[in-house]
Amino acid sequence: MALALSLGRRGQGNTWPNPAVGCVIVKDGRIVGRGWTAPGGRPHAEPQALAQAGNLARGATAYVSLEPCAHHGKTPPCSEALINAGVARVVSSITDSDPRVSGRGFAMLRDAGIEVTTGVLAEEAARDLAGFFLRTEEGRPFLTLKLASSFDGRIATATGESKWITGPQARRWVHGLRASHDAVMVGAGTARADDPSLTVRDLGIDRQPVRIVVSRRLDVPLMGNLAKTAREVPVWICHGPDPDPVLQRTWTDLGATLIPCDVARGQIDPGALLRALGDKGLTRVFCEGGGALAASLLSHDMVDELIGFTAGLAIGAEGLPAIGAMGLERLAEAPRFQLGETRALGPDILHRWIRRG
Amino acid sequence: MALALSLGRRGQGNTWPNPAVGCVIVKDGRIVGRGWTAPGGRPHAEPQALAQAGNLARGATAYVSLEPCAHHGKTPPCSEALINAGVARVVSSITDSDPRVSGRGFAMLRDAGIEVTTGVLAEEAARDLAGFFLRTEEGRPFLTLKLASSFDGRIATATGESKWITGPQARRWVHGLRASHDAVMVGAGTARADDPSLTVRDLGIDRQPVRIVVSRRLDVPLMGNLAKTAREVPVWICHGPDPDPVLQRTWTDLGATLIPCDVARGQIDPGALLRALGDKGLTRVFCEGGGALAASLLSHDMVDELIGFTAGLAIGAEGLPAIGAMGLERLAEAPRFQLGETRALGPDILHRWIRRG
Repeated sequence: MALALSLGRRGQGNTWPNPAVGCVIVKDGRIVGRGWTAPGGRPHAEPQALAQAGNLARGATAYVSLEPCAHHGKTPPCSEALINAGVARVVSSITDSDPRVSGRGFAMLRDAGIEVTTGVLAEEAARDLAGFFLRTEEGRPFLTLKLASSFDGRIATATGESKWITGPQARRWVHGLRASHDAVMVGAGTARADDPSLTVRDLGIDRQPVRIVVSRRLDVPLMGNLAKTAREVPVWICHGPDPDPVLQRTWTDLGATLIPCDVARGQIDPGALLRALGDKGLTRVFCEGGGALAASLLSHDMVDELIGFTAGLAIGAEGLPAIGAMGLERLAEAPRFQLGETRALGPDILHRWIRRG
Repeated sequence: MALALSLGRRGQGNTWPNPAVGCVIVKDGRIVGRGWTAPGGRPHAEPQALAQAGNLARGATAYVSLEPCAHHGKTPPCSEALINAGVARVVSSITDSDPRVSGRGFAMLRDAGIEVTTGVLAEEAARDLAGFFLRTEEGRPFLTLKLASSFDGRIATATGESKWITGPQARRWVHGLRASHDAVMVGAGTARADDPSLTVRDLGIDRQPVRIVVSRRLDVPLMGNLAKTAREVPVWICHGPDPDPVLQRTWTDLGATLIPCDVARGQIDPGALLRALGDKGLTRVFCEGGGALAASLLSHDMVDELIGFTAGLAIGAEGLPAIGAMGLERLAEAPRFQLGETRALGPDILHRWIRRG
């Protein structure tokens, strides 16, 4: 089961709007088939593992990290495929919350006389598939917020110098994080200040995550890296109502997708933003700042996981803060997270925090 | 030798201006005596370990974390004690930089026919005794700076609320750190805002570290905890030239020690401050902020070790920064530290950084 989960994670960032599932077929104590959701979401994990197993699937046990699907979509249901292959037993982590499945996959298997065990490593599966479940249940993707700062929480000097605060190991880790998310998101201030390309580099991946800029007024550099490459790797700009029609047309011509979002108190409402991204099919979004967007997401309790990279240098209070103004009145209102892990990463530290229950 | 070093560390914070040394006497593979510098700096480690060993010291090996002293101070030299006890071999980590010793201790032992090995675990000893060496060589104590903050580097909300950002485990750890330093130091702003008592609590220690407030104008609450207890646990106030004579007399009457320091650019010069504390005999000072004092020490490159406690909550940019304005122009000027360790500490993380060579 742990192997099936780990295979499933290979698809993270690559399968949206579908879940990234893993499947392992075991016959007489030997692994005879392995599969994980293919890029784009199809084929699913099970048919790939069954194809590897061939005739050996007959009488075998299938370990699947999510309940096999029960509905006819663009492919026949995986539960049917498992039944047809003559699998004797299915072990699974967690029930699919998609209303078209939701227990029906397990029921189909049981009706066909297959022994079904569920709930194995369910907590781990729930974590791995959190984006898929959030989108199905609440209509929004899982949001990871990255903060790479000096140990006093600054992301640039007063003059805007930010290269480099963290070391190459942390920066490489960030590329890995980008790859395991469906999309990378920044605020307009970061897009203007850093002119980032937001692509995954040097990791040999085939499919780039979507690049999202949150800019109420479509104020993103028209000559920047994102504009230049919008036809090669998707660029989505989330903007407020009544954008400048010239900018709107220019960005559309450049190949960007424009997503209108509601505005609250002068800024794009984070809840509306994430619902819009959920509607577009995203399950995992990786936000890389800047301070204003981070503050807005945090103060609206929209951050599911927080990943800090802290470097061993001090910039001082004139520096640009990693998190902007949050309008907190009392300490009790501060959003709190639970520690996931901390570790050294080259000259820096990595610390991972998880939303509290 | 590792045991001798670890015994030596028991004295940290308790032996100033003397070094905290450990000694182990081994005879035929058995430990027959252990000693460490007593509170106040005397007796030294060696005579205590020799007294425990008694006649068994004859022909034994003595492991000492610092070169045994060679001069007659308030006690006879330890080298003489080792010779008189008939020790056959002395293993030591590091040469004493005190000009009255500095190799003479080892020479005395060798002249008496004792086999002497030096440099064993020298790096660890240099770290443990860094405060003693810094004071002897540069006239200033070792400075540890603590920062306990939210993960965006804030130590209080905009309204000054700071209780509690970190959890009880981190706060207890801080008491342990206070106990292993000769003195605890804060800026006047922290003394006014938090009215701290700066004592070590709940650790069963006998001797409290000196409490230091850095206040150019002697502007420390006269009705506060420090004022109330200045006769029980020493309070030193480091102030600029021309303090208000009434305040000066009042603080003296309250039992505080006043230490005049030079001022540069409107604030107490950190170099002058630390030299003044070195002159008073301090070898290890633990600074607990606030932001202005931390920034001043960091920008003058006076911080030897930095200990961060980071909690899983966000306060936002209106919060009080852990490090105040540093006047940095370029990232290359930012003081950089090398990672010592990072670990979970209850709900928070601890990260320790060391001055770069």
